[in-house]
Order: sequence, then structure tokens, then C-alpha cells
Amino acid sequence: MKQVTISKKFEFSASHRYWKPDWSDEKNKQVFGLCTSPYGHGHNYELHVTVSGTVDPVTGMIINLSTLKEIVNKIIERFDHKFLNLDTPYFKDRVPTTENIALVLFELIDERLSKRENIKLQKIRLYERHDLYVDVWRGES
Amino acid sequence: MKQVTISKKFEFSASHRYWKPDWSDEKNKQVFGLCTSPYGHGHNYELHVTVSGTVDPVTGMIINLSTLKEIVNKIIERFDHKFLNLDTPYFKDRVPTTENIALVLFELIDERLSKRENIKLQKIRLYERHDLYVDVWRGES
Amino acid sequence: MKQVTISKKFEFSASHRYWKPDWSDEKNKQVFGLCTSPYGHGHNYELHVTVSGTVDPVTGMIINLSTLKEIVNKIIERFDHKFLNLDTPYFKDRVPTTENIALVLFELIDERLSKRENIKLQKIRLYERHDLYVDVWRGES
Amino acid sequence: MKQVTISKKFEFSASHRYWKPDWSDEKNKQVFGLCTSPYGHGHNYELHVTVSGTVDPVTGMIINLSTLKEIVNKIIERFDHKFLNLDTPYFKDRVPTTENIALVLFELIDERLSKRENIKLQKIRLYERHDLYVDVWRGES
Amino acid sequence: MKQVTISKKFEFSASHRYWKPDWSDEKNKQVFGLCTSPYGHGHNYELHVTVSGTVDPVTGMIINLSTLKEIVNKIIERFDHKFLNLDTPYFKDRVPTTENIALVLFELIDERLSKRENIKLQKIRLYERHDLYVDVWRGES
Amino acid sequence: MKQVTISKKFEFSASHRYWKPDWSDEKNKQVFGLCTSPYGHGHNYELHVTVSGTVDPVTGMIINLSTLKEIVNKIIERFDHKFLNLDTPYFKDRVPTTENIALVLFELIDERLSKRENIKLQKIRLYERHDLYVDVWRGES
Repeated sequence: MKQVTISKKFEFSASHRYWKPDWSDEKNKQVFGLCTSPYGHGHNYELHVTVSGTVDPVTGMIINLSTLKEIVNKIIERFDHKFLNLDTPYFKDRVPTTENIALVLFELIDERLSKRENIKLQKIRLYERHDLYVDVWRGES
Repeated sequence: MKQVTISKKFEFSASHRYWKPDWSDEKNKQVFGLCTSPYGHGHNYELHVTVSGTVDPVTGMIINLSTLKEIVNKIIERFDHKFLNLDTPYFKDRVPTTENIALVLFELIDERLSKRENIKLQKIRLYERHDLYVDVWRGES
Repeated sequence: MKQVTISKKFEFSASHRYWKPDWSDEKNKQVFGLCTSPYGHGHNYELHVTVSGTVDPVTGMIINLSTLKEIVNKIIERFDHKFLNLDTPYFKDRVPTTENIALVLFELIDERLSKRENIKLQKIRLYERHDLYVDVWRGES
Repeated sequence: MKQVTISKKFEFSASHRYWKPDWSDEKNKQVFGLCTSPYGHGHNYELHVTVSGTVDPVTGMIINLSTLKEIVNKIIERFDHKFLNLDTPYFKDRVPTTENIALVLFELIDERLSKRENIKLQKIRLYERHDLYVDVWRGES
Repeated sequence: MKQVTISKKFEFSASHRYWKPDWSDEKNKQVFGLCTSPYGHGHNYELHVTVSGTVDPVTGMIINLSTLKEIVNKIIERFDHKFLNLDTPYFKDRVPTTENIALVLFELIDERLSKRENIKLQKIRLYERHDLYVDVWRGES
Repeated sequence: MKQVTISKKFEFSASHRYWKPDWSDEKNKQVFGLCTSPYGHGHNYELHVTVSGTVDPVTGMIINLSTLKEIVNKIIERFDHKFLNLDTPYFKDRVPTTENIALVLFELIDERLSKRENIKLQKIRLYERHDLYVDVWRGES
């Protein structure tokens, strides 16, 4: 029984700051290093969205890419060219690390894709830089 | 118990057209967009072939790469510098989407590798562009 | 005196065929190899457009990228998802090699950019694949 | 007479904002688009530094890379993990566009390298993203 | 139940030779091809280290990257700028193929990471070239 | 008057050692760092060969790529899977730095291409790693 997924890459540019308000400056610097710089710094994020499902025998597609692009781009708009700590509602109580940004993106995309039949969000991968990335997927529990 | 796979990247350049003869031109355009352009258009495809098996304690290899290259290149020859709809027998009844091309390639490579002992085709990944790829692997059923 | 250029990358997917109607099949194959395949084959082309000019002291820009994208995308539309030999008027009398496609693109972009003040098309680079590219620029004569 | 240059790539992550205080919000948005977002946004910048000179017949080098890295890294430290508008002194009166950041970096690196014999800063290239870059070099005047 | 991993890329440059002392020169050449060249040859290796664990609700991290870098860089030092056959103790009795180098690296990194709570080395990927890579992970047994 | 060049990328894997026999070990280490490791270390080199000339109005080509590949591959064979210090005659009296390897390759390729009409070796670029490269071209003198 063959499994098939299709993956599409998206990009956005954002800035963020790692900082715990209840920690001293020293502790913030010790744990977060340069990432605690007060006005933030930024990255070109690269997001890979992997969708699993059955290949439609008529169209030959798991999902029409124009549909996938419409769904994901609408979500990414909230992150693109933003300062994630202040311009989005997602990081009031959690540090915008690559892990946390990826978890938020997985939830937002999954919520939209789960409404559609025959497909499932299988995995996302989020690159903060070319040499650092986070994967999120649904595991067995 | 450690699992090991080796993956090799291959490349081919081909053209294709998304078009259902029993659909109107309007419906073809609506579903397939630019991909329904009558004389086709093309891509540089990139194929990653992942083989699993035990590492031979003598040679230190799962499979000799010259063997893998010989097998896969013979298959790829049928796709390279071709118009997939007309120059190959695989897309008479199915649209040459990335999903379908990947499924065909998995079957062709798997058929050849399954004749060899101690190795198994674990997965293939087919890139149509740098930002779009399909994975095919054997799932549990 | 410092020189400054800005370069933007664009992408399009197209197919083409190398074939001289006045040559025998043998001669076509001998000179053009696999590229003479009758229904064509394709590539993901990558186009780098380099614009020189003075940096506007107010905006800090040589050219507003939204202007550059509008100009180049309008030209690329004629090539994207096309079979270059039949879908465009540019290769009736010349083979759509990377050299010739690049020359056509240089002329088309240059014609549009030369109408604007303070900027000049300095160079284009066209990749047919990641390992093959052509540069066109204005030389001294 | 052969010319030789050596180029080394460096990376830094920073955020910035395009905004003219003497312009209305509407005009800022119209000219700068998403880049005028109030708290800034960010990028992974990639800087290529190209040095020309004679190849030392003893060491076989134009410049010892450890020297070049020491010089450039000391300059890049001022940009890495910073909000360029507020954390650096360079963009008080100019918009931190890729053009302007590249011009500043050229001056800073050139000032340091010009003190050394037998070498010359020939060019820098600054990528804001993989599809957008600025070149700065010394032209004839 | 969502699964999360973080992956960091590392690089090292090394040389190696494929050669079995108990085989004839002919057999070595037949099996190993160019890789049996007597003084060795080399590669820029790229190592991806993937760590799984729970995201700390305070820091938003699976593992602090400075910790991961310290651990892996200390191991990579033994391979970087070395001739793997003679400069390391790991390939006295096994050929330094990509498979074997990856197995050694997995063991060395796993040994260090397994001493830490809440995290687990999930996978490593080792690229010998951009078109050849080996994955090692812990499978069910 | 438009100028046109075509560039093709080639790859080879080799090892080398930076070491001056008339220097003490201390001096070798101080100048060459890790690169003086006794048995050498290696890289995946990437060579870009840029050829200028007129585009043949019949074939649409500056040079037939099969010709260029034949010429350059024959030269690269001498470097591929070799220890440059001992397996080639070119570095008896000079250190195999990226600068020197590039100068040798330029000479060897130029010697072959200069025998052909209508084309000229314009430039080569040699990458030792993705973040370090040397350009060689013919300058005015």
C-alpha cells in the first residue's frame, strides 16, 4: 500500500525577540544570547507544508495547489513582514522560538485543512535559516 | 536497533500537459490553470531515491552506488528530454502530475530493486521545482 | 566612485525543441542530441535581472522593486508554461537555445527599462538548469 | 595578464523598517509597501566579500582567510541580531534598503582593507533574500 | 499529540580512502572505483542533527542551540580537516563509507545526548555531496 | 553591442595539504591552521567555466556543450578523487590553495579552448566550499 504526500514551500520574512519579562537582563542574555536584543532581529523563514491523502484518479492530485496556496498564504500574511512579538497575538505568553512558531503554524494550517475531505496535514517544516529547522507532525499518543 | 538508508539524487528534464480530453476547455483551464497549455511546458525534475538495508560489514555499503546509478539511470532515460504525455506509455490514462509521475517512478524502480537481496526501495522524492515535491513510500496497510 | 546594481530573480517553466527544418534527422541528432526530441522537453528557467543606476537619496532605492517586478513579470508571462517554439513569436527563425532565449529576454526587458530615467538594464543571467547559465550585457563596441 | 579574486561569504540576521518620518502613513505605504510595518521585520542577510590582489608566491594566497574573517566579522557584529534603524548609527538619515546597507558595508570593509598592502576590496554582494541582491564595487569615474 | 524535532546543520571537510588490505588492487578498483585512489580524496561533509523532545514551556526550546552546538562541534573536531582512515580511530576495521561515517557519528552524538533529560537524538543525516546522503535513526526492533 | 557568455558547472572531489617543507611545524600551523594536517583533508570542488564568443546564427550556440564537457572533463579527470599534492604534477612547488588550483585550471582549459575559433575562455570560478570561491579571468595589462 503506497503512501503519497505533496509538499509546497512558502516564504515569509519576520522579526522576533527572545525575552522573558520576569527574568533579569542577565538571565535573558545567558539563556537567549544575541536573540534577546531589545528591538528584535529577523529572518527569512521558509515553510514546507506536507499534505497526505489519496491521489484523485481523475485529476491526479492529492490537493489542487491553487487551493493549498490560497489557504496557507492567508495564514502566512499574518506573519510576513511582522514583528512576531507585537504584531501577532500568538506570542504573548510564549517565546517566538522556531519551535513555537512552527507549533502555531501547524495548528493554524491544520485547523483549515482538517475541514476538507480526503486530505490531512501530515507535517510542516520551518526553516529559520538554511542550517536550522523544526519539524512538527501528528504522532501516535 | 539502528536503521540506515542511503539516498542518491538524479535529474531529468521533461515537459508535460495537464488535460482531460473528456472535459471542456473551460473546465480544463479552471482545474489545471496554466498547466493545460496545449503544447505543454517543462521542468527540471529532481529525483531522490532512498534505499534501506543492512550495511555490508565488508564493503561498508548498503548498495554499491554504481549499481544503483545503473538501475535508476536506465529508467530515467525513458523520461529525460521527453514530452511525458506522448513520448512515454505511462500517462495515456492519467494526468502527468507530480504525484502520478512519482508513483510511476516508484513502481519502476521498486520492481528492479526488489529483485536484489538485502535492500529495499524505502522512499522516493520527486521535485518538480525547488518549491514543490512529492514523496512516495510503502506504508502499512 | 562607487557603482551599485540591484538584481532580482524571476522564474518560469517552459519547454522547447532544438531542430533545424532544413537539416536531416541525423544531422539534427548529431548536433543537438537529446534536445531534438520531437515533442520538446522542458526546464525551470531562472532569470536574474540586474539594474544599475544611482541610489535615490530619498528612498534609498535604485528602482522600486514593485515596478521592476511588474515590468519583468509582464514579459515573463509570454514564456511561462509555454512551448517556446510554437507559443511565442521569437523562435520562428532561431533555435531556442539558452543563448537565444537570453538575448530575446535582454531585448524585451531593455526596451521597457530604457524608457525610465536614471536606470539601465546592466545584465541578465538565465539559468536553464542549476549547472548551465548564460549572461547577456551591453559591451563596449 | 590574469586577474584573481577570492570571495568569502558571511551571514547575519537583522531587522529593519522602511519609513520616512516626514511622509504621511499613506505615502510610506504606497512607496514601501509591507516594508513600512511599524515594528520592523527581518532577513537572513548573506554578504559576499571579494578581494583582489596578487597571489603570494610563498603562501599561494591573496589574503589569509583568517585575517579576512577577523576583519569582516568585527564589522558584521554591529549588524548581526540588530534592528538596523535603532541599533546602528548608519541609518539615522537614510532608509536601510539593501542598496544602502550594502553601501555602508562596502565603506566599512574598504576602510579596513585599504590599510593593508597588495590587496583591494573589489566588490561586495549583499543578499537580502535568495532572490534579491545588491552589488557594490569601485567604478571608473 | 504533536511531535516536534529541531535540526541543526554542521559542516566538516575530510578525506578518506576505500580500500580493503586483504583484497587485490584489481578487486579494490572493481568494487570501489575511483574511491580507492591511494592517497585518498575528500569531501565537504554536511551533517544534520535532529533532536526530539518536549518544548520547554518556559524557554520555548527543545534544547538550547548553544548546548547542541557545543556537544556536536566537540565531536566534529575529530573529523574536520582529517584523513579519516589514519587520523581517527574509527575506521581501522571498517571502510569510511558515508554509511559507516554516519553510523559512527550517530553513536558518538547519541552517547552524549542520551545523558541529558527530556531529549533524544532522533536522526542524523550525513551528506557526502549535495547528491548523496545517508540517514541513521533508531528503529523499532 | 551585446556581449554573451555561457557558463557550465563541473564538480570534482579532491584532497590537499597546505605545507611548506622549508618552514617549521609551528610556522606551518600558524599560517595554514587546520589545513596543514599531515595526511590532508578534502573538498567537493565546484568549477564554473565561462566561455565568450558570438552566438552562431545557425545553431544558436556559442559552443556546443558536448564539446565543452568533453574538453573540461578530460582536464578534471586529473584532479577528481586525487590527493592534489602527490597525485598531480601541478603543486610540487606551490601550495594547492584555491587560488593556485584555480590558476592551474584556467591555464589548462585556456590552452585547449584557445585552439578553437570564435570562442574564448572568459572566466573560471572555483568553489572550495559553498562559502569560499576564487575567480580567474584575463585582465587588461
